[in-house]
Amino acid sequence: MSPAFERLQQQLKQLPGLGYRSAERIALHLLVEKPARLPELVAALEAAAAAVRRCERCGNVAEGPACAICADERRDGGVVCVVEHVPDLVAIERSGAFRGRYHVLHGKLSPIQGVGPEQLHLAPLLERVRSGEITELILALPNDVEGEATCHYLTEHLPADREVRTSRIGFGLPSGGGVLYADAVTLRSALEGRKGYR
Amino acid sequence: MSPAFERLQQQLKQLPGLGYRSAERIALHLLVEKPARLPELVAALEAAAAAVRRCERCGNVAEGPACAICADERRDGGVVCVVEHVPDLVAIERSGAFRGRYHVLHGKLSPIQGVGPEQLHLAPLLERVRSGEITELILALPNDVEGEATCHYLTEHLPADREVRTSRIGFGLPSGGGVLYADAVTLRSALEGRKGYR
Repeated sequence: MSPAFERLQQQLKQLPGLGYRSAERIALHLLVEKPARLPELVAALEAAAAAVRRCERCGNVAEGPACAICADERRDGGVVCVVEHVPDLVAIERSGAFRGRYHVLHGKLSPIQGVGPEQLHLAPLLERVRSGEITELILALPNDVEGEATCHYLTEHLPADREVRTSRIGFGLPSGGGVLYADAVTLRSALEGRKGYR
Repeated sequence: MSPAFERLQQQLKQLPGLGYRSAERIALHLLVEKPARLPELVAALEAAAAAVRRCERCGNVAEGPACAICADERRDGGVVCVVEHVPDLVAIERSGAFRGRYHVLHGKLSPIQGVGPEQLHLAPLLERVRSGEITELILALPNDVEGEATCHYLTEHLPADREVRTSRIGFGLPSGGGVLYADAVTLRSALEGRKGYR
């Protein structure tokens, strides 16, 4: 089509979850089907970009210098759950199963893709441990090679003079899922993570 | 989260193919994970909105007053394929099976949803027929109640003094699909649309 159209389609295709066809569909929707929506979307993008930023402490979405969770005095500040991305944090919050605080790494170590410790939001986490703020770390990083490497790096670099209890979240069968439908990696984790019963 | 974040998520959720979770994921991506991409996306949206508009004749995406297909002298201007939305046109173009021109209605008649003939790009199509430009109309509208109603309305309102051959595209089993997997409406269309063999 036109160069401007293709540039927009290219930009949309880079968003998570969108492919070539869905980007085309959205671009046509905004340009031809419902053109009144395009300025509304641009305004919402710009307003959000101006209002929202990373929390200086934990890397979560924030409106001021601290995010809503870091600012909430009722949360247990000593227990910190380490996640890869903000949507992971959002999912844990939705479960209601955690009342501590978070630290978002914004990625995981991946030497192949050129992601080293400097590319992650990792040094501020070590700084939080060094300051004595954290007594327990729960590593909620994924069950893959990069997640493993990130957990390993993190525990290796914890300040030796600080006592921090460290654990990794459990891996196994999801609730409602049968053994029949589980993949090999999940089954291996479920067997390795078995617990005494009775 | 923040009001600005929720407003952006709401805007994204209205785009075709995006739900609550995918809108949240994209908003977090643009605001926290890759904030450098947000101004690029805004610039692409604004550039496309300034450059792209509806073709005055057929309703397709266009950069100037006429779209690339209407401007292409090698296309058969007498045969016009009527589609609901621009992505339908794009799909037919991709197939390479049609060398005529198009007319995009930007919807289909739906009294329940308050879509009457005035809400569609319909009068310009009747005007094209009246001008004598069109000798054949291929109705590529969907196989549902609204598609049926739109085809009916269109053929009823064709100018009586113009001879226009009118057909509807074939409905039936998709290529590669077996009878086993077809839904009832598709099977009914396939049986009704059977052709003599040998």
